[in-house]
Amino acid sequence: MAGAGTGPVPVVLDAMGGDHGPDVTVPAALAARREHGVPVLLAGPGEELRRRLAGAEAEVEVVHAGTVVPMDERGSGAVARPDSSLMVGCAAARERGGAFVSAGSTGAVVAGAVRTFGRAPGVLRPALAVALPTPDGATVLVDAGGTADPTAEMLAQFALLGAGYARAVLGVADPSVGLLSIGSEATKGNRLVRAAAALLPGVPVRFHGNVEGHDVLAGTVDVVVTDGFTGNVVLKNIEGCVRTTLELAARAGIADAGRVDEVARLYAAETHGGAALLGLAGTVVAAHGSSTPAAIAKACAVASGLASAPDARPIAGAVR
Amino acid sequence: MAGAGTGPVPVVLDAMGGDHGPDVTVPAALAARREHGVPVLLAGPGEELRRRLAGAEAEVEVVHAGTVVPMDERGSGAVARPDSSLMVGCAAARERGGAFVSAGSTGAVVAGAVRTFGRAPGVLRPALAVALPTPDGATVLVDAGGTADPTAEMLAQFALLGAGYARAVLGVADPSVGLLSIGSEATKGNRLVRAAAALLPGVPVRFHGNVEGHDVLAGTVDVVVTDGFTGNVVLKNIEGCVRTTLELAARAGIADAGRVDEVARLYAAETHGGAALLGLAGTVVAAHGSSTPAAIAKACAVASGLASAPDARPIAGAVR
Repeated sequence: MAGAGTGPVPVVLDAMGGDHGPDVTVPAALAARREHGVPVLLAGPGEELRRRLAGAEAEVEVVHAGTVVPMDERGSGAVARPDSSLMVGCAAARERGGAFVSAGSTGAVVAGAVRTFGRAPGVLRPALAVALPTPDGATVLVDAGGTADPTAEMLAQFALLGAGYARAVLGVADPSVGLLSIGSEATKGNRLVRAAAALLPGVPVRFHGNVEGHDVLAGTVDVVVTDGFTGNVVLKNIEGCVRTTLELAARAGIADAGRVDEVARLYAAETHGGAALLGLAGTVVAAHGSSTPAAIAKACAVASGLASAPDARPIAGAVR
Repeated sequence: MAGAGTGPVPVVLDAMGGDHGPDVTVPAALAARREHGVPVLLAGPGEELRRRLAGAEAEVEVVHAGTVVPMDERGSGAVARPDSSLMVGCAAARERGGAFVSAGSTGAVVAGAVRTFGRAPGVLRPALAVALPTPDGATVLVDAGGTADPTAEMLAQFALLGAGYARAVLGVADPSVGLLSIGSEATKGNRLVRAAAALLPGVPVRFHGNVEGHDVLAGTVDVVVTDGFTGNVVLKNIEGCVRTTLELAARAGIADAGRVDEVARLYAAETHGGAALLGLAGTVVAAHGSSTPAAIAKACAVASGLASAPDARPIAGAVR
């Protein structure tokens, strides 16, 4: 990998991923370069991308890819398209020692990334990490949807992966880690959580103990560990809850209805910079399909920073 | 059971349950009687309760119970205290054909209720149902914490139980039911959800298909079915999210910080009337430990209404 000390790690951006394709990714690539200082390569149809880049071809390199993975494609279908912008982009990122960013279907991005980069040594399964805003900072939610049915050992590894992310992206020196459960006692929870609660005190992270649903956005801990099913439900529940809360507040005359988006945006991709896929032998960030250019530019900056952090892919085999 | 046509079903209220005991439950019992027309019996220390009822003894009957289940008691410990206000209250409700309400530890209430009433015929496991406010009504979340590790068959029964609750408490004639997952396709989700998605089309409810986290508060369906672990995490996540959203909105100058409680209260027990324990051969509502008198009075009204609804405990054996 290109690493710290040699300038920002380059990022390959899937030009065709996301709901709006190059309409969003081309300005995003330019913004990542100009506003975040991150060199970006665009993977997609070469001729079209160069035309859209107009006079800025010197700022953004293009890697040609002849086809596209449709947004509704399943993971297995994605990896079967080696000439797609997703797979060509992943391969280019690996060859150049760079990070990869896509706003395509998360399932397809995960499958393509796992196929291209493989897992980091000792890592059982990858996990998605998202940084959520809290009143006084941010909390990393991991796994936000990478692995729907993990084992307790995988959850224990997610704690390590999430702590590495909190150090690298949020700059927290010694992150505290909570296990999401339905009671603060280690005896509470489902079978998976009770087994993980028994493992976590032996893992080299600052384990806070179990936390509950109301702790996720309260800043109780720096990292909240959960399985990818619960994590994805929680992440999307927050999106919906923010919107409904502000609507109800506006109707009650407590909030300014016209400015609801200002708070909703705090929870959107613009801020958290997408979901980082942790545990791979490479750095991959999945941005939301409806991301704006600013959101994708931020995701590129996060990916570049994560790729240059030595402990973003932590202690292989620390949890067996 | 005393039923429809013979006046409201009486409710036995655990006088000692909750963070504030009789300071809250005595005024709650009077409010249930006066404001909701529901006859309430208070289970607890007879002498003390009669003294607190002052000149209103004629309005609220007292059932003496010599001890109390502590708030931190586990379920198994609760059922081992037959002289507690919880267990005496449950027994009195069964004897009188009434419903039971407690703001004590939910685990203890569930254990005491299952021990006292037993499951309804054919029901595999009880589930907690909570009605959450949406922009245009309410959605029933079931299971909100009754059974942390259900089977797919149990989830299919929760769909029936939740639909019965939506009919009885929310007055929805033909409730739509969604299965909480991480994608709308039946092939998405964890193992449990994929198995339940295969069963639900055969269950006599109006099955909408899978829903996602952002649908819970959007009013997409009348009933959201999930396991008790995910449901409890979601319920508490909403509590925390409402508060954090309004705090961030107030800080951004979008919302009136002094009136945040008005919206937060929409999601609190005052409105949804506590969590109903469905699937028992009796009606039990668990109110939040920090409930106000108004919240507990509302829970008593919900319990009484649920007990008189013929289909609140639905089709035994409809899911095998």
